[in-house]
Amino acid sequence: MAISYSAPVKDLMFLFDDVMAMQENFEHLNDGELATPDVVSAILSEAGKFCENELAPLYQSGDEGCIWDAGVVTTPTGFKEAYRKFVDAGWTSLSGDPAYGGQGLPSSIMIAVNEMLATSNWAWSMYPGLSEGAVATLEAHGTEAQKDQFLGKLISGDWSGTMCLTESHCGTDLGQMKTRAEPMDDGSYRINGTKIYISAGEHDLTDNIVHIVLAKIPDGPSGTKGISLFIIPKYLVAADGSVGERNGVQCGSIEKKMGIHGNATCVLHFEDATGFLIGRPHDGMQSMFTYMNVARIGTAAQGVAAAELSYQGASTYAKERLAMRSLSGVKNPDGPADPIIVHPDVRRMLLTQRAVAEGGRAMVVYASRFADIYRSGKTEKARTDAEARLGFCTPILKGFLTEMGFYSANLGVQVFGGHGYVREWGMEQIVRDSKISTLYEGTTGIQAIDLIGRKVLMDKFFQLKLFSSDIMQFAAQFLPWKRDPQFSVMWKKAAKLVLLTMKWRYLAMRVGARSKRNRDNAGAASVDFLMFSGYLYMAFMWAKMSLEAHKQLAEGRGDAEFLKAKIHTADFFFAKMLPATDALGKQILAPLDSVMQMPESSF
Amino acid sequence: MAISYSAPVKDLMFLFDDVMAMQENFEHLNDGELATPDVVSAILSEAGKFCENELAPLYQSGDEGCIWDAGVVTTPTGFKEAYRKFVDAGWTSLSGDPAYGGQGLPSSIMIAVNEMLATSNWAWSMYPGLSEGAVATLEAHGTEAQKDQFLGKLISGDWSGTMCLTESHCGTDLGQMKTRAEPMDDGSYRINGTKIYISAGEHDLTDNIVHIVLAKIPDGPSGTKGISLFIIPKYLVAADGSVGERNGVQCGSIEKKMGIHGNATCVLHFEDATGFLIGRPHDGMQSMFTYMNVARIGTAAQGVAAAELSYQGASTYAKERLAMRSLSGVKNPDGPADPIIVHPDVRRMLLTQRAVAEGGRAMVVYASRFADIYRSGKTEKARTDAEARLGFCTPILKGFLTEMGFYSANLGVQVFGGHGYVREWGMEQIVRDSKISTLYEGTTGIQAIDLIGRKVLMDKFFQLKLFSSDIMQFAAQFLPWKRDPQFSVMWKKAAKLVLLTMKWRYLAMRVGARSKRNRDNAGAASVDFLMFSGYLYMAFMWAKMSLEAHKQLAEGRGDAEFLKAKIHTADFFFAKMLPATDALGKQILAPLDSVMQMPESSF
Repeated sequence: MAISYSAPVKDLMFLFDDVMAMQENFEHLNDGELATPDVVSAILSEAGKFCENELAPLYQSGDEGCIWDAGVVTTPTGFKEAYRKFVDAGWTSLSGDPAYGGQGLPSSIMIAVNEMLATSNWAWSMYPGLSEGAVATLEAHGTEAQKDQFLGKLISGDWSGTMCLTESHCGTDLGQMKTRAEPMDDGSYRINGTKIYISAGEHDLTDNIVHIVLAKIPDGPSGTKGISLFIIPKYLVAADGSVGERNGVQCGSIEKKMGIHGNATCVLHFEDATGFLIGRPHDGMQSMFTYMNVARIGTAAQGVAAAELSYQGASTYAKERLAMRSLSGVKNPDGPADPIIVHPDVRRMLLTQRAVAEGGRAMVVYASRFADIYRSGKTEKARTDAEARLGFCTPILKGFLTEMGFYSANLGVQVFGGHGYVREWGMEQIVRDSKISTLYEGTTGIQAIDLIGRKVLMDKFFQLKLFSSDIMQFAAQFLPWKRDPQFSVMWKKAAKLVLLTMKWRYLAMRVGARSKRNRDNAGAASVDFLMFSGYLYMAFMWAKMSLEAHKQLAEGRGDAEFLKAKIHTADFFFAKMLPATDALGKQILAPLDSVMQMPESSF
Repeated sequence: MAISYSAPVKDLMFLFDDVMAMQENFEHLNDGELATPDVVSAILSEAGKFCENELAPLYQSGDEGCIWDAGVVTTPTGFKEAYRKFVDAGWTSLSGDPAYGGQGLPSSIMIAVNEMLATSNWAWSMYPGLSEGAVATLEAHGTEAQKDQFLGKLISGDWSGTMCLTESHCGTDLGQMKTRAEPMDDGSYRINGTKIYISAGEHDLTDNIVHIVLAKIPDGPSGTKGISLFIIPKYLVAADGSVGERNGVQCGSIEKKMGIHGNATCVLHFEDATGFLIGRPHDGMQSMFTYMNVARIGTAAQGVAAAELSYQGASTYAKERLAMRSLSGVKNPDGPADPIIVHPDVRRMLLTQRAVAEGGRAMVVYASRFADIYRSGKTEKARTDAEARLGFCTPILKGFLTEMGFYSANLGVQVFGGHGYVREWGMEQIVRDSKISTLYEGTTGIQAIDLIGRKVLMDKFFQLKLFSSDIMQFAAQFLPWKRDPQFSVMWKKAAKLVLLTMKWRYLAMRVGARSKRNRDNAGAASVDFLMFSGYLYMAFMWAKMSLEAHKQLAEGRGDAEFLKAKIHTADFFFAKMLPATDALGKQILAPLDSVMQMPESSF
């Protein structure tokens, strides 16, 4: 059996056209007029087909992994051909700057496409995915000359990009970095050092690889303030823009990992490599934040991907596999047993996966509106405001959705029972692949401290209040529905949302007050607070989707089965998943001593 | 870096000698007088050393896996030598029947040893582990002649055993089984069929393998009532007891799996194999329950193993790895950063793992008292009562501890960040290995329906009331502590236990009432109810352990650091983990519609 993939284009269009009214948002963008409903629909459909037909068939075979031989990396069979088709069809240039050959479409469309790429072939999708980070960094911080030299080839997909941050002794704490950049007379830098965990750091898909590398220029400030950002191409670029001589960067080895075997995770040795400074010296960390916002929303979408693919596998299996009889009476009298989807606990698992996949997709699309304005809003103020709004959503999306995606992937294995543990069915691969999403681009713990520390407390609750007032305003729309008994469930959802939002604000204030006494209080509450925020954000999305579904059903519009399934899944989410916030609320307020009192020596 | 293992002998002795007063229980056993405190201590210490020195070093290398070649399976390097040492030291015979060369010690001691075996090398430990199932089945249901023929060699470890249940189209629902057993004139049976997922089904560790196989005798009742149990040795046994000619069983292949690569998971083809009936015809399922109780408590201990090993790796790393500064002030001023154990969220993860490992260990030891009496209690009534008590604990232990063990293993990866995802550190292997525990011997969903259906509702709450009255009686001991302000935390734990126990009984009653209207209510609530039960059971254990620690500290006995760490971990469990029951309580009572209303076609 092989995993097959059916792209959720209909669901994406429901979000883009109906729930989120993305067209209204596009009107506030410099490049928004290109993204007409027809264009969006055509792009998502075509991208979906590419994922279904070209990438999904390589998902399981790609698990055989990359081969490293004397610095040369060969990707799994079929990866190169698929990449060539991807480039030829213009997919890499979707939201690239038109001045450099891009199609100039809003980021939200690329983010939606990225979800489908990640679902159909996570490891493969990281190759073009990493290039997006390099493109975003160069677009925002590169000189015109650098853009001329590198952007066109990156946007066309002829070259790919990487982000080189981690060293063996430091990942999160980049201030400890040892890679050195020595200024040369010609304005370039000579780079020496070793980077690890460089995704797509070496491969056979493109003629050149453009490494974006963090390094320290001697005599700069210590810690993260002394870090600068460099372009280090694998091959230096000749005057005519063609690939020139080999630069001093070598892939020393690739890691043996739990999953994403099809993506080469490289140790890169920079030995007297020639690098070109991006932005100002010592300002590299600031420039990296541009990349991180892009990367983290992409990683959040990988959480959706894990839940979606695992759901598709598990729901198909649950309708076919016969085992035991329904407790409430035989459902398949002609067969030797009932299909396992009749069993309530199997449904609980499937509906959890579905609620995460569809609810998470809505969360990502909701935030991608801010990404669009941040990138090409018409005014500086609009862009700055959107950056702050996106910055608030990002750790919640990344932390919550990757944890929930991984959890969902595990439920998919449970639905298969013992078969789920065996590689041939593909379900355990989703678990192995998706585990990376809770680790890279900042672990869940790092997202959590970013949220409670930087985005809530240092922000003095400003963004938190903005987000909660969005929820409150939305919930007010439900009021007219209160009198209609048919929609009492809807009304209850709105009431629940209001109460939870008030609780969220209360919890944030309490953590803030405690944190003034001892800042460890913020750390101890951080992951529980992040998860609470994620559940609330997802509840908001499920309420939005079910309101839209109710409206369309009442007006006789849309696909009734699709809309009813939205309402059923929303009901499930509110009844069976949202109660997690009851536990989280208490955990957030647990006494600090319970975490800190044990002396280090007792561990 | 390689994972190292330090056996928790001290913790086990704290449980055996102090918290559970196992010696009192041993007095009620036929074979209990052998297990003096000194003997128990010596056995656990020596077993711990064996695990530390012989098995742990093979843990990561064993992940390279077994090799199958034309029906012959070669285990990873070192496995065979370690097995030989294990047999020579007499470990396989620990709790075997003395009439067949066993040492006749109580099961609880073997269960404790098994936890250490599983922790130090999960895949390896399954080889002797499976033999225990075969031994238990033969001891309980074999004829004297069968025992003479097979038990001695199984108990000595010269031969190993397997349990052959699953076929490709049925695992849980064994009534659909297709393997056939045709009676022969000589009283033996001719067996034909294919079994899959047979752990340790073929290997190079022993001269012979004794398969215990479920098959159907023609013209028997349909479904599970028509299943019989057979002994099918790989080599027929000659008259003198030596290994004779090859039987008709072949290993067709071994599975590629997510983990436990060092254990061969075999497809076994039985082609005109000669089998010997165990017990009466068509009574195989009943006999299997003997095995299942043994196997499921062993699997529960694997949940403890996952948490323990991952905790050991993560706590060591957290004290060494330097990253960022503590939010509450620099803790390591001479280093470039603080060790990550200063960060509250890292402590949250470590303490969760530790609470699961130590709390889970206590849960297993608590239930192993019932296993001891069930196996060798002095009266029939004592044995029957203990069987029922063990049967009630078993699904909670197996379902809850394997889920929590897997969760803990994942936290261990999180503590390592990106390094956790790379194979060389060994942390991701624990995740991959431990995932099987939530699947084999009945998935979590199967444990959950066994608990709520068979062990709670069909039992008319009898065992549930017995277990809750144990908790209530225990909590009453805390009353004298109320007046002493030093122990107010203890008193609060007792109050919490009482309230939760009352809630547990209330929830069970409510599910029962709903289930009368529609039995799907039991299924929909089942896993949440199982997890609630697990948290309560674990809270009971943590309260017991911290009461004992407080007592010893007050009396100036014991190792103060060890005892204080128990209290600190208990505080953590009550403050940061037990609130999960708030969510579970609501999830248990969620409306059935939220799970069942979506039509099958919409999935």
